[in-house]
Amino acid sequence: MALELTILGYNSALPTANSHPSAQVLNISERYFLIDCGEGTQVQLRRARLKFSKINHVFITHMHGDHVFGLIGLLSSFQLLGREKPITVHGPKGIEEFITIQMRLSGSYHGFPILFNELEGNESKVIFEDDKVLVKTIPLDHRIYTNGYLFQEKSKPRRLNPDAISEFDEIEVCDYQNLKNGRDFILKSGKIIPNSYLTFDAPQTYSYAYCSDTCYKPDIVPIIQNVDLLYHESTFLHDLKDLADFTKHSTAKEAAMIAKAANAKRLILGHFSNRYDDYSVFLKEAQPIFEATELPETLKTIRIGPKGRR
Amino acid sequence: MALELTILGYNSALPTANSHPSAQVLNISERYFLIDCGEGTQVQLRRARLKFSKINHVFITHMHGDHVFGLIGLLSSFQLLGREKPITVHGPKGIEEFITIQMRLSGSYHGFPILFNELEGNESKVIFEDDKVLVKTIPLDHRIYTNGYLFQEKSKPRRLNPDAISEFDEIEVCDYQNLKNGRDFILKSGKIIPNSYLTFDAPQTYSYAYCSDTCYKPDIVPIIQNVDLLYHESTFLHDLKDLADFTKHSTAKEAAMIAKAANAKRLILGHFSNRYDDYSVFLKEAQPIFEATELPETLKTIRIGPKGRR
Repeated sequence: MALELTILGYNSALPTANSHPSAQVLNISERYFLIDCGEGTQVQLRRARLKFSKINHVFITHMHGDHVFGLIGLLSSFQLLGREKPITVHGPKGIEEFITIQMRLSGSYHGFPILFNELEGNESKVIFEDDKVLVKTIPLDHRIYTNGYLFQEKSKPRRLNPDAISEFDEIEVCDYQNLKNGRDFILKSGKIIPNSYLTFDAPQTYSYAYCSDTCYKPDIVPIIQNVDLLYHESTFLHDLKDLADFTKHSTAKEAAMIAKAANAKRLILGHFSNRYDDYSVFLKEAQPIFEATELPETLKTIRIGPKGRR
Repeated sequence: MALELTILGYNSALPTANSHPSAQVLNISERYFLIDCGEGTQVQLRRARLKFSKINHVFITHMHGDHVFGLIGLLSSFQLLGREKPITVHGPKGIEEFITIQMRLSGSYHGFPILFNELEGNESKVIFEDDKVLVKTIPLDHRIYTNGYLFQEKSKPRRLNPDAISEFDEIEVCDYQNLKNGRDFILKSGKIIPNSYLTFDAPQTYSYAYCSDTCYKPDIVPIIQNVDLLYHESTFLHDLKDLADFTKHSTAKEAAMIAKAANAKRLILGHFSNRYDDYSVFLKEAQPIFEATELPETLKTIRIGPKGRR
């Protein structure tokens, strides 16, 4: 199972002919999560050749237009495409009213359930969990109520070592689950066979954190500790720190400081202000602090794990 | 002064990578009117290199998403671009609530006035008028309340013929306006000099009618009589007449019948269902009934008048 990210858009505020507002698709253990949904996201999904029907969960960070104005169009297209299965929209309190009023006033009908998971509060909490995946909020600090999201693969069971197990007639199939869960095996003689002899390490799990939009907020560091990939907004360079503070955005330097403090493996910057044409200046500012900093690439799929980049 | 139309998008319902929902810009005597505003219209405006600040009036036909979901994003971008002058949104009753609720829930602020001209009723009426331009509603018949729009240049004054005027000492500058307005001149002797001797014909005026979405509705023919260009939806071919009736859309044959009955100069079809890849089939169906039928071309500017196509 792969953890893969496809960035559909990463620019701030004003959509242009060649740049797109915030939206990403994360494939985590074959669950396809849409993260933010600026205007035109459904077209970017088509360009990325991602089937609309694969998406069952949408995570909206906040209600600024460049993160949410594409959602009503996407939901309307679901209807036109004959969707029947439910979709869950996670987002700030108010998002249900936002969507249902637009549906009503545009005379839209939807034959599939739209489940809203409206978020409040300023503590990180688990908002989605199944057998393989966990999603937590990352409370951010922006001009309006905003959450980033941490997506984690759950720990996987240890893998059995058949050769080692075959040395012990006493170990039966019904014991395998305990071994996978890490327990030692106790022979009838009382002798303990350590789990590490009978099993191999579990496959590594990976995680992804999406933090946009926010001012510099070191409080988030414990939540995203050791994350494999961090996407952190850097609307400005640090010479515009005053403007970043005023608009509650971050600078590239600050994003790098967060990545470093969190011991992230990689950092992708994004949400650049339209005042910049050449984004390499963001790399130049961030890399001296956090070397594994990258620029986003629209419609390119990035492998977060297992090893090897796509 | 030119009357020119730029089609930003003309497909029905589902935006794709290469096709765009309904939106057009009409330049009528240097007033730039935006007609419908599907998702992504602001990006199409940029591609057409049309300055956002030129647009002071938006005309929305109905509240289906493919005609209106781009409006909130466009208005938000106006704000980000520092707009101060008012914009007027003409559209069905409910459009003010539609926009203001989205503004409130997305935490948007706008420093420019948004004036709403909410339409009700099923009679054609003048909804905009200034010294050069008149706009009337064209009540249509769709699944929800819908108006098309007729855009007309106002009659222009006749042009003075200086050589003819110079033959009569009695004609003074203060008489010129009467001559331009078509009055004959009466000499002191009682002799009548016909206006047609003293003036040239006024420059021709041109008109444009936008009819989408609607079923076949011959009632509109008197309203759009002699229109220079008619854009009429033809979502289906006539072999799907049952489906057209059920969804309250038109066929290419029906659009051509309307154009013929209205004595239109030209017809452009549009709003094609996604089931068609090759739009030439629409021409084939319409042209035997109305020869001057054309297919729409995205981002191409069409000259409606004066003579000569761009």
